[in-house]
Amino acid sequence: MVDPRVYQAMTKTVVSHLDPYFFQVVEDCRVLLRQAFGTTNEFTLAMSGTGSAGMQTAIANFVERGSKLAVLANGFFCDRMTEMGKRQGASVVRLEKPWGEAFDEDDVASFLRRERPRVLAFVQAETSTGVYQNSKTICAAAHEVGALVIADCVTSLGTMPVNVDENGIDVAYSCTQKGLSCPPGLSPVTVSPRAMAWLKSRKTTPADWYLDLKLLADYYEGAHRYHHTAPISLFYAMREGLLCIHEEGLQNRWARHKAAHEAFVAGIEAMGLPMLVSPGSRLTSLNTPRVPEGVDDLKVRKSLLAATDMEILGGFGPLAGKVFRVGIMGPLATEEHVLALLAGLEKALAGEGFAPKASGVDAAREIYCAPRLR
Amino acid sequence: MVDPRVYQAMTKTVVSHLDPYFFQVVEDCRVLLRQAFGTTNEFTLAMSGTGSAGMQTAIANFVERGSKLAVLANGFFCDRMTEMGKRQGASVVRLEKPWGEAFDEDDVASFLRRERPRVLAFVQAETSTGVYQNSKTICAAAHEVGALVIADCVTSLGTMPVNVDENGIDVAYSCTQKGLSCPPGLSPVTVSPRAMAWLKSRKTTPADWYLDLKLLADYYEGAHRYHHTAPISLFYAMREGLLCIHEEGLQNRWARHKAAHEAFVAGIEAMGLPMLVSPGSRLTSLNTPRVPEGVDDLKVRKSLLAATDMEILGGFGPLAGKVFRVGIMGPLATEEHVLALLAGLEKALAGEGFAPKASGVDAAREIYCAPRLR
Repeated sequence: MVDPRVYQAMTKTVVSHLDPYFFQVVEDCRVLLRQAFGTTNEFTLAMSGTGSAGMQTAIANFVERGSKLAVLANGFFCDRMTEMGKRQGASVVRLEKPWGEAFDEDDVASFLRRERPRVLAFVQAETSTGVYQNSKTICAAAHEVGALVIADCVTSLGTMPVNVDENGIDVAYSCTQKGLSCPPGLSPVTVSPRAMAWLKSRKTTPADWYLDLKLLADYYEGAHRYHHTAPISLFYAMREGLLCIHEEGLQNRWARHKAAHEAFVAGIEAMGLPMLVSPGSRLTSLNTPRVPEGVDDLKVRKSLLAATDMEILGGFGPLAGKVFRVGIMGPLATEEHVLALLAGLEKALAGEGFAPKASGVDAAREIYCAPRLR
Repeated sequence: MVDPRVYQAMTKTVVSHLDPYFFQVVEDCRVLLRQAFGTTNEFTLAMSGTGSAGMQTAIANFVERGSKLAVLANGFFCDRMTEMGKRQGASVVRLEKPWGEAFDEDDVASFLRRERPRVLAFVQAETSTGVYQNSKTICAAAHEVGALVIADCVTSLGTMPVNVDENGIDVAYSCTQKGLSCPPGLSPVTVSPRAMAWLKSRKTTPADWYLDLKLLADYYEGAHRYHHTAPISLFYAMREGLLCIHEEGLQNRWARHKAAHEAFVAGIEAMGLPMLVSPGSRLTSLNTPRVPEGVDDLKVRKSLLAATDMEILGGFGPLAGKVFRVGIMGPLATEEHVLALLAGLEKALAGEGFAPKASGVDAAREIYCAPRLR
């Protein structure tokens, strides 16, 4: 859901991509993006493409032909990183986990010491499974063997702490249409000084001109040398979306998402639907309850949509038909919405012959009430 | 200049990138883009990036490592094509012309028969010089030697005939922020059946995943298999911009641009500023009068901007300080605007000590009046 303020920002007159006003908007975005990413990285920017353009930016700039890329593979977007790494001519090694499980950090550290890759790529917030990956130990182990760390933060930015600096992530990318609650079209990227130093000394030229970070640094920073015509209106939108977050306060926003997540989980578990992901590894923005045995998830989702206009997604790949994917983020991470969603789900499940153990709405309401009453 | 209708279209609620409504919007865009490009190509679409992403789409999909790319080099964007070709690992051969001159079609045909490249790339509408390149003979010669033809139509689409099919262009790309008068952020691309057949038989995988046309065809056509999250709001904007063009009528729109161009040229020549480009090779959307001897073009442009809020650009590369670049397109290609622009320019030039030979405004008005009076 996009705030009306953000839509309105897009009606502002388009200026030139070299206009000082545009660079002022960009500078505001940079300051606010650093806060959301949890970083002091000077190079914090947005690519002129959607989230997957951010992924390609990370891989095309930091993975050289013939170098070794290690991927932590436990979901759809790790597979996409693998594919992009191969296309850049890297030799890709993978540590595998079933979809829905997080990696043990020490296991990854051993893997890294064994493989000694040039770059490690992992997904902090896996949209296909709902898994959050802790990474402080992982990043330290990667740095020990001289590897740079790329993290996919598409579903964490703006909804929960990304902690780029605290974790030691070198290159993080995200999107605008999830936690930032803006229209899609830009991909925020942040790069550590260590990674920028490596990039400046990179011997080969990346095949990718459009997403070449050295050229983009010349455009957005200092000289403002023309590179491409940035999508001005989307920058207006992103600045407004980031301002909404700034006004709410990052801590408040994260707490609001956490509360909505905890209430939803309490409700869904009370109904008798266990969560796919273990506590402690769950995203707060994207929930993946298991589909009850014998229930057709597509029918449930369709009847929910028809009755309430609320859309939830199904699993795919190995999780097809096995989980619901329920995004609760941005303006929708509220008590009112969570209760309405649980009520709608209860009805839709009942329509498919599933009798809930207890009222999900009551259990969720309890979670919201508890801190106020006790 | 963007029509208020187009800004308003961006306030429409964002739907999912897999929503049937979105694909309906895309389908409308495809139909309208085919008309503007002058093609019946089934594969006519927009890339989720700005104009240079369109250029990279053409080069990354159709230029293979080790293959020979021929570039017609007479401006800034031909150099960019050369750079992208090299990054894809092609061997690049160039036919050179001074900036501001069009190529003789027969010369190019000889060059092609000599070089026998895999792909020929040229710029139909060169934004850095104002040159329009005729290409029917060129494309035929390229096909004779088995080459595909890529054409940069960034500044022609929506302002003058692109004639993709009539010329025999295989891959054409453009942008949204020039002739389509929309905000920047998408890059319309059209691909001939001949080029699509070649792409389907291509043995190597392009390094570029984000702009991979085979994957994009799977997303936008038939199966609607998820690829990336398209920038929905920009598609709403582009559809509205294309509808404005459709309602005006393409022929009318081209005639309006031609009239504005001819009036501007009459005015500027009356004042004593010769055009850089020969008649017959001029874009109607972008005019490049020479800066008079001894006049500082930057001072003229700054005082014009300060006095009238009208911004014109300077030349760059070998044309720095030598030409003005005056875009007259979209809602601004009108008599009222052309006369106001010439009046403003006359004052700004006078401020720098240049005395016009005759009134540019009068000469331009004459051009607009003539067809009505006689």
